Amino acid sequence: MAYINDNFTKIHHRYLFAEVAKRVAAYKEQNPDAQIIRLGIGDVTQPLVPAVIEAMHRAVDDCAKAETFHGYGPEQGYNFLIDKIIAHDYTPRGIHLDSDEVFISDGAKSDLGNIGDILSANNVIGVTDPVYPVYVDTNSMAGRQIRYIPCTEQNGFTGDIPAENLDVMYLCFPNNPTGAVITREGLRRWVDYALSHNTLIMYDSAYEAFITDPEIPHSIYEINGAKECAIEFRSFSKTAGFTGVRCGYTVIPKELKIKSSDGSLVALNPIWNRRQCSKFNGASYISQRGAEAVFSAEGQRQTKEVINYYLTNAKIIRDSLQKSGFTAFGGENAPYIWLKTPKGEDSWKFFDRLLHSAQVVTTPGAGFGTSGEGYIRITAFGSRENCIEAMERIEKIG
Amino acid sequence: MAYINDNFTKIHHRYLFAEVAKRVAAYKEQNPDAQIIRLGIGDVTQPLVPAVIEAMHRAVDDCAKAETFHGYGPEQGYNFLIDKIIAHDYTPRGIHLDSDEVFISDGAKSDLGNIGDILSANNVIGVTDPVYPVYVDTNSMAGRQIRYIPCTEQNGFTGDIPAENLDVMYLCFPNNPTGAVITREGLRRWVDYALSHNTLIMYDSAYEAFITDPEIPHSIYEINGAKECAIEFRSFSKTAGFTGVRCGYTVIPKELKIKSSDGSLVALNPIWNRRQCSKFNGASYISQRGAEAVFSAEGQRQTKEVINYYLTNAKIIRDSLQKSGFTAFGGENAPYIWLKTPKGEDSWKFFDRLLHSAQVVTTPGAGFGTSGEGYIRITAFGSRENCIEAMERIEKIG
Repeated sequence: MAYINDNFTKIHHRYLFAEVAKRVAAYKEQNPDAQIIRLGIGDVTQPLVPAVIEAMHRAVDDCAKAETFHGYGPEQGYNFLIDKIIAHDYTPRGIHLDSDEVFISDGAKSDLGNIGDILSANNVIGVTDPVYPVYVDTNSMAGRQIRYIPCTEQNGFTGDIPAENLDVMYLCFPNNPTGAVITREGLRRWVDYALSHNTLIMYDSAYEAFITDPEIPHSIYEINGAKECAIEFRSFSKTAGFTGVRCGYTVIPKELKIKSSDGSLVALNPIWNRRQCSKFNGASYISQRGAEAVFSAEGQRQTKEVINYYLTNAKIIRDSLQKSGFTAFGGENAPYIWLKTPKGEDSWKFFDRLLHSAQVVTTPGAGFGTSGEGYIRITAFGSRENCIEAMERIEKIG
Repeated sequence: MAYINDNFTKIHHRYLFAEVAKRVAAYKEQNPDAQIIRLGIGDVTQPLVPAVIEAMHRAVDDCAKAETFHGYGPEQGYNFLIDKIIAHDYTPRGIHLDSDEVFISDGAKSDLGNIGDILSANNVIGVTDPVYPVYVDTNSMAGRQIRYIPCTEQNGFTGDIPAENLDVMYLCFPNNPTGAVITREGLRRWVDYALSHNTLIMYDSAYEAFITDPEIPHSIYEINGAKECAIEFRSFSKTAGFTGVRCGYTVIPKELKIKSSDGSLVALNPIWNRRQCSKFNGASYISQRGAEAVFSAEGQRQTKEVINYYLTNAKIIRDSLQKSGFTAFGGENAPYIWLKTPKGEDSWKFFDRLLHSAQVVTTPGAGFGTSGEGYIRITAFGSRENCIEAMERIEKIG
């Protein structure tokens, strides 16, 4: 008699994007000629840069000849990519990493979900609220308890250090959905908390490429002691438009150890390696060659142009909203703008108003958690024209 | 205080391929001029076929233009691929599947590992012995108990139906490592067992493309009732050389239900969908377009040629070994030959003898489980010249 993991039957059904789609479809049916502008979803729209395209064509050609064919690669990823990640993303920031501390995968979402495999179901999990749903859902599936740390205007959307003991804490900066960043001092407070409580930090820095302020840390390992308490997750999805190509990476320093139930300390790096070797067969060779090209001189220049395109969109959105009298956060070191609804309007009501009066689709903040009520998320991943047009429409309804 | 999943600290360290590599390296160091032929690993060596190469070039080009750019795809995979899988692999065998019963992934190994997420840790797991280590390791990581069903010459390497109750049973035909296939009647016995014991069958048919005998079932769903008790895992890795490209799929029929702890029946299809939506972001668009091309007329003809190349290798290996007086199994509907060691010689000793006397690398059967002792696995995935040369050398040491 096979039994199911009961936690799956208990988890909350998430309806956020389905509900958004439903309301948009209903509006569209009643208004078939409406020119709807979608600034709701967090997917990129600009094509891959030429350096990446060329590298992937070469990789495809490699697969066409026996001499250059690549079959199973290392489960941990190819060193041609790992070495460039370290040399580009870490060494210049004074962070030393060995190549076996970086694990390439098919994307940060997979790693953020799968990392729970190596943790006890008894850990109490902290997440910032509003929250990227993956942290909550994947831990709920494993039966773990969740604590929500409110991220509000008062604490700069970075969360107050909790008084209670959390076993595992998820942090995401630049943040999805608020677009907030955390200062070095702010991040140091979280690392200090983790070190003193033996808390494991899951640091999601999928949006680090959008940081323009030199004072904002890109990696949690810029903070002393973080290697002893934090795993860092990164992705090429937003950095280089790889949402459909699939490539990300996870850093697990060898110093990072947590407890087993007999009280002994266990290093997580070999445990994750064991997990990956048993349940994963490496990211696509073609995707890894594409990711490698992001680090070439051309690739860097070209991907920065795309990032700047989105950041300019973000600035246009933020400036326009503020000019129209709205209060808006984020959008300076992040592709997300966190717009405060006027006069505390319910976020779904404001969503409907923007859809019906301006034909602009956003995402209601309440869908990301209790502390998201009173806000909506606008993404800067659309085209320039759509951003400008959407802001003109919103200005009119003021 | 973060706690680890203790099961990881208890699992057996698998040293099979590491030990093989160590012995080969040691021999190579003492015999630097030795021309070693590797027939040990289960990776393909022939390049991807032109139809797949062309499709992946087109897919890369799609990513270069905003109008054809593909970002996040459906977590379940694109319908352009799902529909072709159903039309080609299932409909002609009288199996009706809806498109939401097929889930595309980055490979069967990921799915075979991750499927455990949706099952209770209390299930008792049955595996055939010798066994593909992934089934054992991934269940051990979740703390599940394992029972081994011996696959021997006496039962045609298909395992005797157990008297005891198993909650979940893994079957793999054509089998890795033995190369054995199962008849329709043999598979019916397993399905009957599963239906009467409410056992969930995990059917790994990664090697189905190697089946040449029309009497051998390709899918477990060719057996009536299997939709109510079995999940089927498939892969493009061996079918079309995708070991480095990464694409596979898993079929979960809507009829398939198992128990929750309160005794109610729960359908697994929406539960796996929920798991994939939270922990996976879809397989690479480029890989999916490559996989789609496998089903074109050209792709079918070209991939069948490659399969036939490996099957001819297998025939050469098997015939040569039998001519040399060995007893060999498999290799007729599978890329693996399961060679009985002479006079019951220990499989590691025979491995060493083949390495030292013939400079041929194989895989000792004992590494796949207790019932693998007294056998070695030889793969047909090498080049034709190497297969012929290796057999000539083995014939000499007879």
